[in-house]
Amino acid sequence: MEKTFIFGHTNPDTDSITSSIVMENLEKKLGNERAKAYKLGKINKETEFVLNYFKVQEPETLENIEEKANVILVDHNAFTQSVNGIEKANILKVVDHHCISNFETKTPLYYLAEPVGCTETIIYGLYKSNGIEIEKVIAGLMVSAIISDTLLFKSPTCTEKDISVAKELAQIAEIDLEAYGMEMLKAGTDLSDFTPEELISIDSKNIDSNGVSIQVAQVNTACIEDVLKSQKEIEQAMENYIDKNGIHLFMLCITDIINSNSEAIVLGEKKEIAEKAFKMEIKENRMFLPGVVSRKKQVFPVLMENT
Amino acid sequence: MEKTFIFGHTNPDTDSITSSIVMENLEKKLGNERAKAYKLGKINKETEFVLNYFKVQEPETLENIEEKANVILVDHNAFTQSVNGIEKANILKVVDHHCISNFETKTPLYYLAEPVGCTETIIYGLYKSNGIEIEKVIAGLMVSAIISDTLLFKSPTCTEKDISVAKELAQIAEIDLEAYGMEMLKAGTDLSDFTPEELISIDSKNIDSNGVSIQVAQVNTACIEDVLKSQKEIEQAMENYIDKNGIHLFMLCITDIINSNSEAIVLGEKKEIAEKAFKMEIKENRMFLPGVVSRKKQVFPVLMENT
Repeated sequence: MEKTFIFGHTNPDTDSITSSIVMENLEKKLGNERAKAYKLGKINKETEFVLNYFKVQEPETLENIEEKANVILVDHNAFTQSVNGIEKANILKVVDHHCISNFETKTPLYYLAEPVGCTETIIYGLYKSNGIEIEKVIAGLMVSAIISDTLLFKSPTCTEKDISVAKELAQIAEIDLEAYGMEMLKAGTDLSDFTPEELISIDSKNIDSNGVSIQVAQVNTACIEDVLKSQKEIEQAMENYIDKNGIHLFMLCITDIINSNSEAIVLGEKKEIAEKAFKMEIKENRMFLPGVVSRKKQVFPVLMENT
Repeated sequence: MEKTFIFGHTNPDTDSITSSIVMENLEKKLGNERAKAYKLGKINKETEFVLNYFKVQEPETLENIEEKANVILVDHNAFTQSVNGIEKANILKVVDHHCISNFETKTPLYYLAEPVGCTETIIYGLYKSNGIEIEKVIAGLMVSAIISDTLLFKSPTCTEKDISVAKELAQIAEIDLEAYGMEMLKAGTDLSDFTPEELISIDSKNIDSNGVSIQVAQVNTACIEDVLKSQKEIEQAMENYIDKNGIHLFMLCITDIINSNSEAIVLGEKKEIAEKAFKMEIKENRMFLPGVVSRKKQVFPVLMENT
């Protein structure tokens, strides 16, 4: 049996890491014994908290993928967010909850996307439809990703299905959703030992929309002001990134997970796209976006519409 | 409730037409009362046979889709094979069994693809997972599409799942698979009253691969020689189509459904791609392709690899 590489997106978040681990578990139970989870970058502090809590080892890092290697993508589909060499890999399956963009295959494949808040909500359905029981640790990883992606059900990306699946998984994992969830989210807001360069790449995604290269990074915090103390240094890091990667618009969304708002630092030659998109002026390179917590649902679509 | 438009690809085949009708049935049973099937072009003789046999009306034709209209795509995903205006529609769902290419969305959606021989095999799974019973006429439409797409299980695209689903559906539909299947396939090979222009567009698909516009049309026949009697006229129609649409490579596969081979007429400025792909010389504008019956699995992938 050939090996199957399973991984989420670059700048991995809790959903990307845990979905890879959980899909490895599911694939093995379905008979794909050589399925193996990988990560495409350093894990963040929230994910570190989750893996420590459930005593699960973090996956190995994958730098490149060989031509024709079998892969399963979770929590992403865009080649721009995937591993080096993905264009020539043999994509067996995709399980994802994002828009489809920058993705194509030469042959038919298994592709399951649902417009829900978290990849793990979809994977839960695969366990059910295959009649496979979800073990305690696996349930813990899955529910952690749902909490992470939906900011404990506060994000507009959160659906009824995410909530009901999370409740069932929390029971199997024997955790208190509210208490565990807040502790986990707070672990992710500890930004103290990140350099500005690291900060803007913790969770950063690029989309090419009608020839405009848009980079949107996001950090979660319990206090926006804290992060803005280093606005100057962060801007310098963003400018360097823009120059090096030919970015036309770079937004860093600093998301207040307590009050569900974001402050965005906006740079780049096409920053008027952000002003048009949010019908707001950029002042001191910043915009306050009330109620905005979801890059996928509240940031990328409006930016793309204005390119 | 807003209307939902359901349709398969242009130059519709039996799978595209019946999957649209069957998805309308399923959507309505799931509560989407304003779901409605459409077709993107004239139905072929095989499909006409199927609809007559099960006494089902053919869907209305859809010429354009309005901006932000809700749509469900079946049996295709490429915008180049879809309705005019698809780029600005609101794609709710895709159920398909093709490679993913020329497709993107701005927002998350429901997307289910499986590498099986026929879209109806996937839709069968949706009836099952939603616990909805399949009625006799619906089963008849579904099994007809599986027979059509797999050439009665002879195509290399056919999977074990297609066969087992077809057997179950044949029982519900109360048909004899072999007898009904051959009668249906033969109805589709009656090419007598098609003009050469119609012949090359009965089932014709375009893919853009690295800037090369490849058109591959396919007709089924019980006798290749019969079709080749009008090779000159067919070539003229192909040349006209190439000029009008900027096609770089046009292949017409004339597929012998009895012996499972194809003869291809190959034209266009990039016809050396076909020679490289099949490691064969084109003589008198033709290539004989032993064992080739599936455009999706045996023609498009090798052509794309050589662009």
